[in-house]
Amino acid sequence: MDVLLFGCGRVGRAFCELLCRKSDMLKRASISLVGVATKSRGCIYNPHGIDVDDMLRWESITGRIDALSRGGCSVIQDSNEMLRDINYDVLVDCTPSDFDLGEPARSIIIKAIQKGKHVITANTAAMSLYFDEIMDEALEMGVKVLYEATVLSGTPLFSLVRDGLPGCRIKRFEGILNGTCNYILSIMEMGCSFDEALLETQRRGLSEQNPWVDIDGLEAAAKTVIVAKSLMGLNVGMSQVHVKGIRNVTTQAIEDAKRRGGKLKLLSRVEINADDLDITVNPEILSMGHPLAYLEGFSVGALLLTDMIGEICVSGSGSGPKETSYSLLRDLLSLKGR
Amino acid sequence: MDVLLFGCGRVGRAFCELLCRKSDMLKRASISLVGVATKSRGCIYNPHGIDVDDMLRWESITGRIDALSRGGCSVIQDSNEMLRDINYDVLVDCTPSDFDLGEPARSIIIKAIQKGKHVITANTAAMSLYFDEIMDEALEMGVKVLYEATVLSGTPLFSLVRDGLPGCRIKRFEGILNGTCNYILSIMEMGCSFDEALLETQRRGLSEQNPWVDIDGLEAAAKTVIVAKSLMGLNVGMSQVHVKGIRNVTTQAIEDAKRRGGKLKLLSRVEINADDLDITVNPEILSMGHPLAYLEGFSVGALLLTDMIGEICVSGSGSGPKETSYSLLRDLLSLKGR
Repeated sequence: MDVLLFGCGRVGRAFCELLCRKSDMLKRASISLVGVATKSRGCIYNPHGIDVDDMLRWESITGRIDALSRGGCSVIQDSNEMLRDINYDVLVDCTPSDFDLGEPARSIIIKAIQKGKHVITANTAAMSLYFDEIMDEALEMGVKVLYEATVLSGTPLFSLVRDGLPGCRIKRFEGILNGTCNYILSIMEMGCSFDEALLETQRRGLSEQNPWVDIDGLEAAAKTVIVAKSLMGLNVGMSQVHVKGIRNVTTQAIEDAKRRGGKLKLLSRVEINADDLDITVNPEILSMGHPLAYLEGFSVGALLLTDMIGEICVSGSGSGPKETSYSLLRDLLSLKGR
Repeated sequence: MDVLLFGCGRVGRAFCELLCRKSDMLKRASISLVGVATKSRGCIYNPHGIDVDDMLRWESITGRIDALSRGGCSVIQDSNEMLRDINYDVLVDCTPSDFDLGEPARSIIIKAIQKGKHVITANTAAMSLYFDEIMDEALEMGVKVLYEATVLSGTPLFSLVRDGLPGCRIKRFEGILNGTCNYILSIMEMGCSFDEALLETQRRGLSEQNPWVDIDGLEAAAKTVIVAKSLMGLNVGMSQVHVKGIRNVTTQAIEDAKRRGGKLKLLSRVEINADDLDITVNPEILSMGHPLAYLEGFSVGALLLTDMIGEICVSGSGSGPKETSYSLLRDLLSLKGR
């Protein structure tokens, strides 16, 4: 299975590093990276498989992806050309999330689907904005679109429901979906102010370029929409989510939560009531009996209420690029296994 | 896919009820129950599929499985005859767990495999005692043996690792695997003595006939062995597990744990150290930051340390026959999906 990677930022790079680390496994599974396209650092193609280790080494010296033009690698001028002309089986999309328009991810994904290629994406924005269009197009073309990396990073959620909860209806969803917010709230619990906590997050390079996408709950809301559509079959959009981020959370509020024996968390919630639907992203006090209350730092998790076996909770200790890139690999392997 | 059910106790009955509830789904998946064998309540066979609803109704009146002899059902005298002579694709084994010998489950499973049938089992005892023999036999015959129901009841564990964590190595395992013990400890936390808590559990019909199998940690140990073998590839047996149950847990010990800011839980643990292996089932104090500490009542859960994405935790709110029987259905569907 030949893979074309679009985007080589933090997640794309972590994906490449993972491919290096797991090269034996990938060889056994006949999975190889044949193309890498970036916006400003060049594009390369090698039908026999790119030496990823070498590519990363050269990139770290030259700052260019296309510095590696040995061993059958050819430099491509335009990323559109790659989508159109080269041979590949799966597009792995690691382009940055744009929460206004969902571009360029949407266009790239749709083009790949229309060429009959499978798509694996980490792009939360595009999937939350164009879920229906993308899935309809994929259905029509008979290809798969997998998006495990868009929610809970490396922790399996969609594959858990697909393979682990077949036949179950998800009646309620609660999640701590944004690791950055959870990290900030965790630091605040140790006595920092919001500003100090944010600074610490940025200083450690843990937040996105625009941290307000996290902090104001936009990223969590997008993830919640993907969950509502994908796991609960709900016809909803970003406009239906009542979002309140953590921008105005005070040390006082954190202390209040503690005094009440709980923890303040940015909680995503999808609740189906008798005749309406409640989708929220809100700072909420969780009692210490709540399965998500113990999640600290960059941990993320989800609590699903099912019709058949009650509540199921899944969580993971990490939500960085390394974990996210693992979900891309998982999707790749599951595509291979089909 | 034609199913033969062996054993119709609490789990077998719950499995039948689940088949009734999900009859539409099963019809779509072409899954039908063609035979039911019990030790003392008769055996029936219907190549066109048993009307499970009807069977359960008749059984509740007459106490016999073979009371239903209409609509193409034939009564079979001997369960061995069923294994040998009737047509089926999958054996679903719900025979009771015998922790001394693992019988009759072992013999039944091996016979089915040797006839080239797939096997789905809920029998913790047989799987912990004869894991290698059973899996080797299955490999040789080219059939599948699935055993999701043996650990964590309805909560997916083996399927989570298989489908959700491909390529991950499990470096450490911690689990609260016995729901009855967790229930007893939860009640004790509210001020009951051990004896009162046990009585309450029995009064509500929530414990097995022999509650000491749960209380002395034997059942949890068997589950731990299955995990160690299946998820961590370790060559271990029951004799290598250091087991200490909750028989001697005092109200004082529970209070001590509380005072130290934690909870006393019966924890299963598999730890691979530099040059040895530590497998224990022990009452341990978990701090409230531990992902399994919040599990109350009949909840069960597992914490996996992976080499690729750190810790993953999965838990479920129930561990009764209903949840266990769902895992049998899950295995059935996954067999169908292959």
